[in-house]
This record gives sequence, C-alpha cells and structure tokens, in this order.
Amino acid sequence: MAKGKTEVRAWIDENYEDLRNVARVIWERPEVELEEEFASGLQANVLERAGFDVTRGLAGLPTAFVAEAGSGEPTIGILGEYDALPGLSQKVQAEEEPLEEGGAGHGCGHNLLGTAGVGAAIAVKRVLDAGTGSGTVRYYGCPAEETLLGKVLLARDGAFDDLDAALTWHPMNTNAPWMAESLAMNSVQFNFEGTSAHASAAPERGRSALDAVELMNTGANYLREHVPDPVRLHYSIVEGGGKPNIVPKEAAVWYYVRAPSRQRVESVTERLEKVAEGAATMTETTVETEYRAGCYDTLPNGVLGSTILENMAEIGEVGFSEEEYELARDLRRTVDDVEETMSRQGVPDDIIETELHGAPVDEIYDEGEQFTASTDVGDVSWNVPLGQFTAAAWPIGVSAHSWQSTAASGSEIGYKAMRFASKVLASTAIDLFRDEAILENATREFEAASEGSDYTAPLPEDFVSPT
Amino acid sequence: MAKGKTEVRAWIDENYEDLRNVARVIWERPEVELEEEFASGLQANVLERAGFDVTRGLAGLPTAFVAEAGSGEPTIGILGEYDALPGLSQKVQAEEEPLEEGGAGHGCGHNLLGTAGVGAAIAVKRVLDAGTGSGTVRYYGCPAEETLLGKVLLARDGAFDDLDAALTWHPMNTNAPWMAESLAMNSVQFNFEGTSAHASAAPERGRSALDAVELMNTGANYLREHVPDPVRLHYSIVEGGGKPNIVPKEAAVWYYVRAPSRQRVESVTERLEKVAEGAATMTETTVETEYRAGCYDTLPNGVLGSTILENMAEIGEVGFSEEEYELARDLRRTVDDVEETMSRQGVPDDIIETELHGAPVDEIYDEGEQFTASTDVGDVSWNVPLGQFTAAAWPIGVSAHSWQSTAASGSEIGYKAMRFASKVLASTAIDLFRDEAILENATREFEAASEGSDYTAPLPEDFVSPT
Amino acid sequence: MAKGKTEVRAWIDENYEDLRNVARVIWERPEVELEEEFASGLQANVLERAGFDVTRGLAGLPTAFVAEAGSGEPTIGILGEYDALPGLSQKVQAEEEPLEEGGAGHGCGHNLLGTAGVGAAIAVKRVLDAGTGSGTVRYYGCPAEETLLGKVLLARDGAFDDLDAALTWHPMNTNAPWMAESLAMNSVQFNFEGTSAHASAAPERGRSALDAVELMNTGANYLREHVPDPVRLHYSIVEGGGKPNIVPKEAAVWYYVRAPSRQRVESVTERLEKVAEGAATMTETTVETEYRAGCYDTLPNGVLGSTILENMAEIGEVGFSEEEYELARDLRRTVDDVEETMSRQGVPDDIIETELHGAPVDEIYDEGEQFTASTDVGDVSWNVPLGQFTAAAWPIGVSAHSWQSTAASGSEIGYKAMRFASKVLASTAIDLFRDEAILENATREFEAASEGSDYTAPLPEDFVSPT
Amino acid sequence: MAKGKTEVRAWIDENYEDLRNVARVIWERPEVELEEEFASGLQANVLERAGFDVTRGLAGLPTAFVAEAGSGEPTIGILGEYDALPGLSQKVQAEEEPLEEGGAGHGCGHNLLGTAGVGAAIAVKRVLDAGTGSGTVRYYGCPAEETLLGKVLLARDGAFDDLDAALTWHPMNTNAPWMAESLAMNSVQFNFEGTSAHASAAPERGRSALDAVELMNTGANYLREHVPDPVRLHYSIVEGGGKPNIVPKEAAVWYYVRAPSRQRVESVTERLEKVAEGAATMTETTVETEYRAGCYDTLPNGVLGSTILENMAEIGEVGFSEEEYELARDLRRTVDDVEETMSRQGVPDDIIETELHGAPVDEIYDEGEQFTASTDVGDVSWNVPLGQFTAAAWPIGVSAHSWQSTAASGSEIGYKAMRFASKVLASTAIDLFRDEAILENATREFEAASEGSDYTAPLPEDFVSPT
Repeated sequence: MAKGKTEVRAWIDENYEDLRNVARVIWERPEVELEEEFASGLQANVLERAGFDVTRGLAGLPTAFVAEAGSGEPTIGILGEYDALPGLSQKVQAEEEPLEEGGAGHGCGHNLLGTAGVGAAIAVKRVLDAGTGSGTVRYYGCPAEETLLGKVLLARDGAFDDLDAALTWHPMNTNAPWMAESLAMNSVQFNFEGTSAHASAAPERGRSALDAVELMNTGANYLREHVPDPVRLHYSIVEGGGKPNIVPKEAAVWYYVRAPSRQRVESVTERLEKVAEGAATMTETTVETEYRAGCYDTLPNGVLGSTILENMAEIGEVGFSEEEYELARDLRRTVDDVEETMSRQGVPDDIIETELHGAPVDEIYDEGEQFTASTDVGDVSWNVPLGQFTAAAWPIGVSAHSWQSTAASGSEIGYKAMRFASKVLASTAIDLFRDEAILENATREFEAASEGSDYTAPLPEDFVSPT
Repeated sequence: MAKGKTEVRAWIDENYEDLRNVARVIWERPEVELEEEFASGLQANVLERAGFDVTRGLAGLPTAFVAEAGSGEPTIGILGEYDALPGLSQKVQAEEEPLEEGGAGHGCGHNLLGTAGVGAAIAVKRVLDAGTGSGTVRYYGCPAEETLLGKVLLARDGAFDDLDAALTWHPMNTNAPWMAESLAMNSVQFNFEGTSAHASAAPERGRSALDAVELMNTGANYLREHVPDPVRLHYSIVEGGGKPNIVPKEAAVWYYVRAPSRQRVESVTERLEKVAEGAATMTETTVETEYRAGCYDTLPNGVLGSTILENMAEIGEVGFSEEEYELARDLRRTVDDVEETMSRQGVPDDIIETELHGAPVDEIYDEGEQFTASTDVGDVSWNVPLGQFTAAAWPIGVSAHSWQSTAASGSEIGYKAMRFASKVLASTAIDLFRDEAILENATREFEAASEGSDYTAPLPEDFVSPT
Repeated sequence: MAKGKTEVRAWIDENYEDLRNVARVIWERPEVELEEEFASGLQANVLERAGFDVTRGLAGLPTAFVAEAGSGEPTIGILGEYDALPGLSQKVQAEEEPLEEGGAGHGCGHNLLGTAGVGAAIAVKRVLDAGTGSGTVRYYGCPAEETLLGKVLLARDGAFDDLDAALTWHPMNTNAPWMAESLAMNSVQFNFEGTSAHASAAPERGRSALDAVELMNTGANYLREHVPDPVRLHYSIVEGGGKPNIVPKEAAVWYYVRAPSRQRVESVTERLEKVAEGAATMTETTVETEYRAGCYDTLPNGVLGSTILENMAEIGEVGFSEEEYELARDLRRTVDDVEETMSRQGVPDDIIETELHGAPVDEIYDEGEQFTASTDVGDVSWNVPLGQFTAAAWPIGVSAHSWQSTAASGSEIGYKAMRFASKVLASTAIDLFRDEAILENATREFEAASEGSDYTAPLPEDFVSPT
Repeated sequence: MAKGKTEVRAWIDENYEDLRNVARVIWERPEVELEEEFASGLQANVLERAGFDVTRGLAGLPTAFVAEAGSGEPTIGILGEYDALPGLSQKVQAEEEPLEEGGAGHGCGHNLLGTAGVGAAIAVKRVLDAGTGSGTVRYYGCPAEETLLGKVLLARDGAFDDLDAALTWHPMNTNAPWMAESLAMNSVQFNFEGTSAHASAAPERGRSALDAVELMNTGANYLREHVPDPVRLHYSIVEGGGKPNIVPKEAAVWYYVRAPSRQRVESVTERLEKVAEGAATMTETTVETEYRAGCYDTLPNGVLGSTILENMAEIGEVGFSEEEYELARDLRRTVDDVEETMSRQGVPDDIIETELHGAPVDEIYDEGEQFTASTDVGDVSWNVPLGQFTAAAWPIGVSAHSWQSTAASGSEIGYKAMRFASKVLASTAIDLFRDEAILENATREFEAASEGSDYTAPLPEDFVSPT
C-alpha cells in the first residue's frame, strides 16, 4: 500500500465525529440550488481553519468556493456538492413524514457528498504537509448540481483548467467505481408570444401562444421517430394561459434534451428549435429560446476507476451495525418492486438480494453502460481525467430523490457511507500524488477518449446564473 | 305617463347624493366574487333601514340576499350585482395607474349596477306604500356574476320561482334596451391522472397526464369543424407538469363551451367529454370532469324592451356635464381602434361617432343579434320575463373589463349613468305594477319563447359553491 | 307584358320536343369535366344551325364555346353548363340502380341547364331578328363547372368583358329567383417532399412528408378557432405513404378554403400556407403549393331577381302531370329527413310540405342568405350584373349530387323544369333588350355592390387548364 | 471431416448447371407473394423427379409445399423461399434499367434462396440413400416471405412440429453465420368508419374517419415516449378521404409494430389499439382492427452457427471470377455511402473495404446484435433449433431490395453464392445426421433460450391467407 494512505484513513476515522456533525447540520438545514449559504459557508470555514486558502464566490456564483493547500504539481481536485431538493423534507425514520411540511430535503445525499470531500481534502493536506508526496490539493464547493449549473459555470470560467485530475463520488446504494456514462443534456425553455383577444367575442383577432406550445409539442412527439436511439425528450408546460376567455398572449414550454453525446444533444436541440419555429410560423406568434442549463455526458476513466477499486478493496467493509441493517430492511420494505428498480439501474443480481451494501464490489460492473440521467460532473470529465464512485448511503431498492433516501442520508447509514467515501477519495488522491504512472495513464486515456473535443461550455455566451 | 313614475324619478334625484356615496364606497373597496361582504352588507342595511324585509345568505351563498317590500301580486324583482374583477385596480383618471398595485377593480361597473337597483327598489316601495299600484317589490343581491355562479345557484334554489318579472341593467357605453342574446355556457375542467416516472430513466413506466391534456386539446380542435356555428370552445392548461424530468402524473385543462342555446352547450359538452375520455384511453390515464360553472343564454323580452324604451324616452338626457365629456374624450383617446371595437359590439354607426352617449336610443337596434359573451342573467331570463338595458357608464370605444371602464365607473360619468338606470328600473317597475296588460303580454311572449324548456340549473346536482 | 315575351314562350313550347331530345341524349351520354365533347359539340351545332356565329374552344378549353347572334348593344349572355358527375350513373326510376356500373351521371342536372339556355338563346334571336328589340344575344357553353374551372378561365380570358348582363339558372327543387350568396373558394393542394429511409433500420435518416401533412392538418384544425365565422376548411389526404416500412418521401393534402368573400378566402389561404410552411420547417421537409381551382362568391342582383320573379309569375305553372307527381312522391320516399335537409337549404316551410314545386314562389325568400357551397357562376357575377334562378327539376327533399336527382334529371320532371327555365331566361332577356331602365338599374346596383373590387381571376397567372 | 460431406459438395458441383438454370428461370419470371405458381411448381417437380415425396398446398397456401425423403429420426428441414418484389424489375447490368417497366424483380435473391435448398436436399438424400447416416430430410417450399405470411401460416398449421432442426440462409453481401436477432413484428391496419356529410353545407353532421386516423397517429407519436427502447412504430395512411367537399366516412392507417420480442410487440400493439379506440371515441367513429401479418423475432442457435462456420471454413472460397469482381465493382460504384450503409448493418470494417466477399468470415461477428428488420424465419426459430447464414450474392455496399441486388441475383455472382450456400446447407445437414451430439446440444440451447415460450402463431385464430 502506498505510504500516506494509512494516515489519511486513520485521520478520517479519528475525526469522524466532526465530519458527521458537519453532514448532520447541513442535512438539518437543507438549502436548495444557489441558496446554499449555510452549507458552503460552513465547509469553507472548516477548510480555512484547517489551513486551506479559500476563495469564496466563483464564476458569478456566491455559494461556490475553492479551497487549496500544498503547492506544485500535480494539482488534484476533489468535487463537493451541498444543494438539497425542494419538497423532500423527511424525518429519519422508515415511514414517510416530513420534518417540515413542504420543506426541502437532502434526497440526493449532498450533505454527505460535500462533507466526505472536505474530510478527504484535509486528510490529504496533512499527509502532504508531512512530506509524503507533493503537489496541490483542492476542494471545489460546487453549488446547484440539481439544476446542472454549478460545475458548468465553473468549467466555463476555467476553474478546472489547471487541474490534473478530479475525484468525486455520489451517495447511492452500492460501493463501486462509477463507470457508466451519464447523458449529456440541454434544458431549454421556449417562450411564445402571440396576441390576446376575447376568446368568445373575437377569437379571430387572437394569435394563441398556447396553440403554438401545443403544436410545438405535437411536432416534438413526431420528431421522436426521427432521432437516433437513445435520445430523451421531455417537457412540461410552464405557462398554459390564464382564464379560458382570453386567447393566451403568452405561453411557455420547458424541454430537456438528452443524448449520449454533447454533439447529439446539440443537433437534436437544433431540430427542436426548428419545430418551435415551425409552430410559431403556423400560429403567427413569435418564439424566444431560453437556455436554462446544459451539461456534458460523463467520460469515465478506466485507470482512475481501477485505482478506486483497489482502494475500496483495501478499505474493505463500511462497517454498518445491526441497527443500521434493521433500518435498511425497514426502508426497503416501503419500496415496491425493488428488483425491477435496481436491475434497471444495472445493479448486479447478487447485490439486489442484500438489503444494504456493506462491502465494495469485487470488480467494475457498469463499464460501457448508459446511465439515463445527467449530472454536471460530466462537464468536469471533459476537462480533466475524472475518477468517480458511489457509496451505499441508502439501502438497495431505494432510489435517489425519494423520502427514503432523504431519511437514510440523515441516518448513521449515510454518515458511515460518507466516512467510507472520504477514505476512498483521500486514498485515491494519495495514489495520484505518489505514483506518477497512474496520472500519466489516466491522462493518456482521457486524451484518447476526448480527442477532437475541445470543451466548450454548453450554455450561450451571454448566459448568467439566475442567482 | 303612468302615475307613480314622476314620483320615483323625483325620489331618485333627491337621494342621488346618498346613492352616489353607496356606489362610491363600493368602488373604493372592490371585492371579488364570493367575497362581497362589505358591498352586500351595505346594500342590505340600506334596504333594511328603508323598511325592507331582508334575508341574508341564500342558496349557500353568504353574500347573496333578498330584500322585499309591499305585498300581494304581482311580484317584480330587481337584480343587483356587486362583485369586482381581479387585477383591474385603477385611479379615476385617463391614464393607466392602479389605485393599489395588483388589486381588484370595478371594471364591469357592478358598484353602479347594484346601487341603481337599490335606489329603484326603495323609490318603488315608497310609491307602493303611498297606494299607487299594489304588489311586491324585491331586490336580489346577486354575488359572483363574473364567475357565473350567483344567479345560477339562486335559480337552482328556486329564488325566482314566485317572481312575475325581473328587471336589470348593465353599465356599458349606450343607453338602450338590451335585446341581443348572450351565449349559454359551461365552464368545465378536465383533471387527468396518470403515473409518474423518471422521464429519462424509465419513460416507458410513465403514463403522462400532460400527454392526455394535449391529445384532448388536439381532439377538441378537430371537433371544431363538426359543431354547428356559432359554438365557442376555448381553454387554458391550468396544470402542465412540474420539472420536465418527471412524467407528469397530474395535468388539467379548463374549458369554456359556449353556444346560443343551453341544449347545444350541453350537447357539445357531451362531445367534449368524449374527446377527454378518448384522450384518457389513448394514454392509459384517467380523467375526472369538474363542472366549475354554467349558465343559460338570455331570452330577451320584446314587451319589456319596448316598455324600457318608452321610459328612457320620457326620462331623456342623462345629463353629463362638459367636464364629464372632457374625461370621456380623454379616455376614448387611450383606446385603439374605437370604430372596429364598437362595430363589433353592434353599436350603430351614428353612435360610434360620439364620445359619450348622453341620451337614449330612439329604437331597439340589437334585436336578434348575438352577444358573444355570457352572463348568469340568462338563467333568470329562463325563469321569468326579463327586462334588461344598458346605460352609458363609460365612453363609446371603451370596453368592459378595462382600466378605462374601471376609471369611468368610479367617476361622475358612472354615477350619472347609475342615476339614469335607477330611474329606468323604477319607472318600468311602476308600469308593471300599474298596467296589467304589460305583464300579461310579457308573460305570454316569455311562455311562447321558452316553451318546452323547463328550467334546470346548468350545474351538477351535487355542485356546491366554492365559498 | 313586354312585346316579344309571348313569342319566345310560344317558340319554346313549339320546339319543346327538340329541346327535350337534346337534354335527353346528353343525359344518356354523361361526360365529366373537360371531357364534354359530345354535349358541347351538339349544342354548338344546334346553335350554328339556328344561325348563330359559333366560336369553339375558348381560354384553352376545347369544350368551351360561345355562340352569338344579333348586333349592337346591349349584349346579354346566357350561361350554360353540361358536365356530369363521376359515379352517379342511375336509371330513371325511384330505386337506386346504375345505368352503367361505376359510370358518371347528371346528378346536377346540367343536361337541362345548358339546353334550357340553348332554347332561350334561339327564341330570343328570332324575336330580335323580327325587329322586336335590338342588341346581341350570346350563349356561353361553359365546361367543368363541377371543378370550378370553366367560367373562371373564361373570365380570366376576358370572355365576359363586353357583356352587359348575364342570365343563368340551376336545376333544383324550387322555382325561384336565386338570391342567396354562394361561398368564394380556393382549392389548393400542398405537396410535401422529405427524405425516405427504412423506417425500421434507419428512421433517424428519414424526414417524413407524411409527418408534415399530419402536422399541417393539426395546425389547420387549431387555425379554425382563429378565423372569422363562417369560414370553411376541409381537406383529404391524397397521398399518405406507401408500405409502412419506408419513411414517406412524398405526401400530399388537398384543401378547400371557403368564405363569404374572395378577400377572406385569400387571407385564410395565406394563413393556411403559413401553417404548411411551419409544418415543413418542423419536419425538415419542403412544401409546394399547387392551386387546383378557385372561384368568387356570387353577387346577387336584386333588379334582375325582381325581373325574373315577375316573369315567373307571368309564366305560371310548370305543368307537371299526375304521373310526374307520382314519380316525385316515390323519389321523395327514398330520402331520409326531408324536412331537415330542406330547411337547411333555406326552403320555406310551406314549400317543404309539397312533393314537387309546381308553380313559382310569390316572393324572393333567400335574400341575404348564405348558400354554403361554391360555383364558378360567382366569377361571372363579379364581372357583370347576373340574374340567376332555380327551377324544380327534382322533388322537394332530393338534394343535388344524388342518385335521385340524376333520375329526375332524366325524367319528364326535369324536361318540364328545363322548359320553364328556358322561358324565364328568354323572357328576362327580352325585358333587358326592351326596357333600358332595367339594365341601367341592374348595372347601377352591380356597380355599387362590387365597388372597389376589380375582378382578378382567383388562379395563379401561370395556371393552365388540366385538359 | 464427417463422411458424406465430400459427397454432397461434389454432387452440387456436378449439378451446378442444372441448379443454376432453375434459379435463372425463376429470376426471369418473377412472381410476387402468393402468386409463385411457376417457381413452386418447378421446384416441387425437380424434387419429385429426384425421388422426394411431395405434398403440394399446405396451410391453405396453394404455392406452399413440402418434399420429404429418407426415414426415421432425426428429421432435418431445409427452408426455401421464391417470392419476388413488386417494382424491382432490372436487367443484369450495372445501370438501372428495368427488364419490364414496372414489373417485379428478385431484389431479395429468393430465386437463389430456394434453389440452393433444393440442391442441398437432393444431395443429402443421395448420401442418406447410400447409407451414410440415417434420418429424414425435408425441403419446405415457403411462399410469401416478403409479407411475412408463409412460414407463419405453416407454423400455425404445425408443419414444423415433428422437425428436429431447420436450416436456411439468405442472399446478402457476406458469407457468415447469421446470429443477429431480427425484430418480431405485427402488421395491423386500423379501419375507421364515421358519417359522411357535405363538408361545407353541414360539417356538423359529419363524423370524420380521417380525423380519427389523424388523432390516432398523433396519439401514437405521443406513445413513442412511453414504450421501451427499441420499439419501432411506423405507418402510412392508406385511405385518406376522397374529394375534400365530403367529410370522409372511411379512412384507414396501416401500422407496423416491431420490437425485439414477441411479447413486447403484443403489449405495444395492445396499447396502440387503445390509441385507436381513443381516437374513435374522440370522433364518434368506429374502428376495426385488421391483422395483416405478424412474426416472431429470430432465436439464433450458437451450436448450429458454429457448425455452419466450420463447414464454411472447409468449403473455402466461393470462387468468383475476375469478371464477377468487375461487375461487383461496377455495381458498388452506383451506391452512395457504402461505408455507412454497411457499418449500419454491422458488417466489420475490414470486410467493408472489399468489393465482393469471396471467402467466409473467420468468426461469428454479429452475436447479440439487433437486426432491425423482420422475417418469418423467426417463427420457425421458435419451433425448432434454427441454423441460418448469409452468402454473398451481391457486392459489399449493395442493400437488399435494390435494383443492384436484383441485377446481382440474376448474375453469375448470385449463382455462385447459391452454389456455396447449397454446399453449406447440405454439409450442415450431414453433420446433423451423423453427429448426434450436435443436434443434442443445439436442442438443449434452443430449449434453454425459448423456455417458457410455447409458440403461438402471431395471427388471429380466424385469420386466413388473402390468397
């Protein structure tokens, strides 16, 4: 085992109570996208107190920050997130009940995500300070993952330009390197404007923006046949007219376009814009295209994946107690169709059987798989080699963005997953600092895989954060 | 001139200041549908103090009331309204500026409408008390005209069953009997429910309620070809899905169905329900039909129309001052396309030229015309012979439901229109009390016109007011 | 009675057998649009033999001709038609049975229409030759009325430019001046072209022309709400793809656009073209607009209508025999819903009761009415004052374009209607030749009604007849 | 090499001229689906003369037949086809030019397909007759493959019930076992019936069957989002109304539904039927579902695939001459985008480079691939273990169903491919007769793969062949 790895793991074990508290207070005070003042402030302070140089506010995002320690090459970044989800407030129990009616909740476990990174960064700094390995370690406090904004704006701003590799994880239901590719995506709203008129007295004088929205959607459904598999198009009508007696002057529809590559997302978006334009022509209305967000697919890195797998093996069991297994079983019982849900996510059959994934997988099982969701981690992965993994923060059978995952993220299950993840992050960072070959190979793989693709942020140049 | 008519007109002139104050304070304190506590309370109190028997709260509507005086036959009802419109707050001036940002306003002049009736009822009572004519006079305080609920619920409750004739008016831009027929209408919402699913990860497991709404609307637009002219169908999507990444479990669309007869509205509504059902079948969702309101077309009464015309001729000029003409001209200047707007409403060419209609028309000009809007006065007109007219409460060129009509309704123009209308209502009531032949002829006409139509309220039996 | 009118009627009676034979042989040999070689040839020969100067082939239409007699002013034209309808072959009997399976038939009675005009023209010529009145009489042999081409191409070619008035009639179920206005119309086909591809192997490479057609139609159904009443839009898909396994490269939809005025037809057609363009944009296909036909609404002429009414009164009974009434009753019995069908056509209630209209109406009953079909007679009516009427060639209850009207048009009912019509045409022409005031008044009325409308043929400049 | 294989190959070489003549005359006299009287008669006669017992007419298909020789177990079937494609008539040359304008052509090479099987069956019979191996050999003459009817009706009729294995091939552009899975499919037509009416005079009385078709298609396009990948839905409108002036009483749309499994095809078809039903409900029309054809996906058999691969290796080069390579190059030159077309079909890169595939592949390259078309061979593959391969009857770059494949199928390229295929079929059959283990393993694999699936023909019970 590379020197320094024992040290980082020990430090994390010793400081588990503090890290657990950070994750717990963030869980108790959930903040949605771009409002993560408490969480980002807390983490920045913790890192600053630990001797990091902290820059608060990046790329026009007040709740983004970067904390840096060490010096020289290589520069290894650890990515953290801390935004919560609206409407997912939930108590730590196996029965649905909000902590605060209608409140937000950490259904994606970002209270754990960021904190594991904070712990890893500090542990690594201490090893570097002790002279074991050299280089620079950074923690990126990334807001607004749920709306795919944070890392995209950071990437556009060049925040990852001088990085050599990035490491991150995500709370989930298995302990495994994450090699499946997420979908690139655009989030685009089409705002139509027509002419209002009394719908009964003078409908012929009206030009209905809602007609345009509906015709656009009809056109988009026809378009489905003529785009390559797998493309995902989905939408909601965010403005559908007021009282029926007025021909709607304004109406709007919000689309997500997803595909396995950025290029395809762009080409389908272009075709969708033609559909919108056609709908406007049909109805004598006008349409304005409003880009709300966008991201890249993730480019997994096999070299970093293998390094992560090895570190997981060394770390071994997560160490759940019987009490935690009990809670896992109770939560799992509230889920219909565990088997189907999990197999859809590509979880291997033997894992599906267990209630809680207590030890890491033996091998990578999702290489070449398509993960049918999107994350702004994708954008980082097209800038630098990215190592990414999951840790079991909730039981097998539970999905992210559920009340069950919110409960688990605030329970000891979640905190132990965070501890495990923190050790994996730190160990892998140490490997990168100490074994040049790993970084060289990872970089070579990255360059081959991304060849020809010069990263350009998937947002219009004049896009500014809605903060 | 029938005895008693001089008296009612004189009484109204003498008490103009008081009536004006009632209309003014209601204008200053606009209350939207079903919230008309102040206005209904004030009018009920005024009538009670004048010796009327008042019953507050009718047909499950706390802000409805009836005030009665006199005794024996015939029973003549005067219909009043007092609800305001959301978002139409406006100062009394010829420039758009709200009194209260986002507040309600009397853009339909109901502050004048009800108060004119209150004045007329009291004036008539005094004449009856004096022994000139005999019978019963009633004032109906009718809430929620704007949502077509008040008179419909009253009619369903039998409030007009023992009435011999009803009289009412509406603030508008001419002084004339109102013989055009308004459209019968249904206001129906279709609530679809499907199955939610992650729109990217498992769209095949979702059944989209929004798909159903859109397919229903497509079907409804195809239906347009196959319904008789003139039918009006218009809708808005009141629930169109949340974030696009979830297949919408719930979605809803709100329709108005209008046609010249109740029967046709019902038959088209039935066909629209089939369209909704077909959309649910297509998408494997379910649909629930929610009746929100409905009303009859108006059945104009020529006998009462002629009586009104005669009384208008006797009353003569409204009596606008030069200052009021000045305001009218200023308001008119803020309106585009005066000529077109007015001619669409069937206003004769010679009237369009003037800025403010200061004297009544010479003859009925809108007999057999279709008025392409709806009112719950229609329901009364299918219960008893109805006399209805308009008085010029705002300038020629101004439409109802505008900031200009709100301004005019709070100005001296509106108050003088109210005075004129009050006199016409009272005079016509006196005619009905004193000349049996008028009521007989009006009743005969009513019976011939409504033959075979037994009034049934256009609402499901289990419908209750949303109060 | 004006001198000459007795003579023309007598001549028609005397030559009834010959005229009847002309109408009969044309009925026996039905020829569809642009193929009327026999009918046009026969009529041209008959007129030539009677001393008319005949020009065969006009405006690029081989089966059009004009026959002229007399000299000087005024010039009065009589319009004739002779095309049959595909698929309407029927024996002269009250039971559906084709003369020739799948063959054409005179379901619109044009065998009578043209022949009545031929008889009238000859009778008038003889009176003019005898020195009673002076001027020029013309018979226009107009092909392809059913596809709205004949008179439109003649009008575009200037064939009616030097005419002072035109007279025509149409076989129908009443004897009456025809004052209702028919609808102006465009017949336009939209031909879409996309890119074919194997629909299973590579649908993403296809751009479906059928998608475009369907999206256009969806858009057109949405458009219905926003055009003024009454507009009629109807269409059929004339090319809808081949085997489903190929993405359709070509697809086409054929529209009729109808409205009460030429201007509105054009404005709605323009909007429909935008819908087509929008559909092409949506689907990345191209669209070509192909004008197939078009016509004007008819401008009725009250002066000529009154003159016709007077002549009808003078002529009196059509003279049907008991046998003919018997046939009429038998035919009428095969029709469902006589009352509804007839009242929809605006036939007065008292006429609906009778089985066969044996005498002319007493007064004009359809002034200001909208006739919801289209005819190329409309185009003539925007060039010169037009007198038009109907004669009862089939029983009340029978509609044009039915097997019953085909049977009646080949029966004695039809021939007697033709005789009556021939007399009305001839008498009215004589009035125009002898009483200058009628023509002056008719012209004055025409000029007032058509003011500002300079006739332009409703066809693209490069349109040529499909002959 | 198993005894008997040398013999069958030799026999085929010796009788090449005769087999070539059979294939040639069938090519020269192309007969489309269910009309293959000449081809089936010729092949049946040839086999009868060679000593086979022939049964002509099977499963209600006059042009189906089975020829049997030998006795006892096992029973090995060879599948043949002989139907041509409409509109693909073409001369044997590298320039598009029909042999007969608008005529049919063997664009799918079925002239070769069946004849290779006939040769193989006779060769095998001779070996069995000579006592080398024992069992029964059958040749199935299967009509109407192009419409997916022949083998499906045979399978429904039990024609494959007592078979132990089936062998077949398909002319294509490579010499290789065919292990890719074709798509299961339904071919279903939806016939709507409404009520006709004059579209201008009384559209409200019409119920448009074309509206129903369009709304069904709109619904089907919305359905696309909610079916699992990869499902294919495609359609054409086979009846879209007559002249636009009549509301269409009848309209029809023809759908193909394809998916990787029979079960999914059925479940999507059921959902499509709901869409049709919903469209009928919306429009007050009725719909009748007409099944036109259907088939299973193919279940490839690895054991038989390997046996075929070995035999191909033994047989070696196809033996094309320089002249044939010349023709291949000329034909290839007429094709755009050779590389893309071929890579879409999963042809390995190194093969794409060559103009004509002259030797078999070294290994199976398409295992687990999805072939995005359908064939009724699929139905056989769910009844018995199926060995299937392709032979290069046309150049790399040429697709089936093209004029180029028609030309090649009538050229020496095609005939040599047929000879090669005949040898592979015969050799593989000999292996099955002589090596019990192969059949046992193949059967075991078949049973494992098809477990739980009891074959039921994908056609309604009352379906009869359109012959």
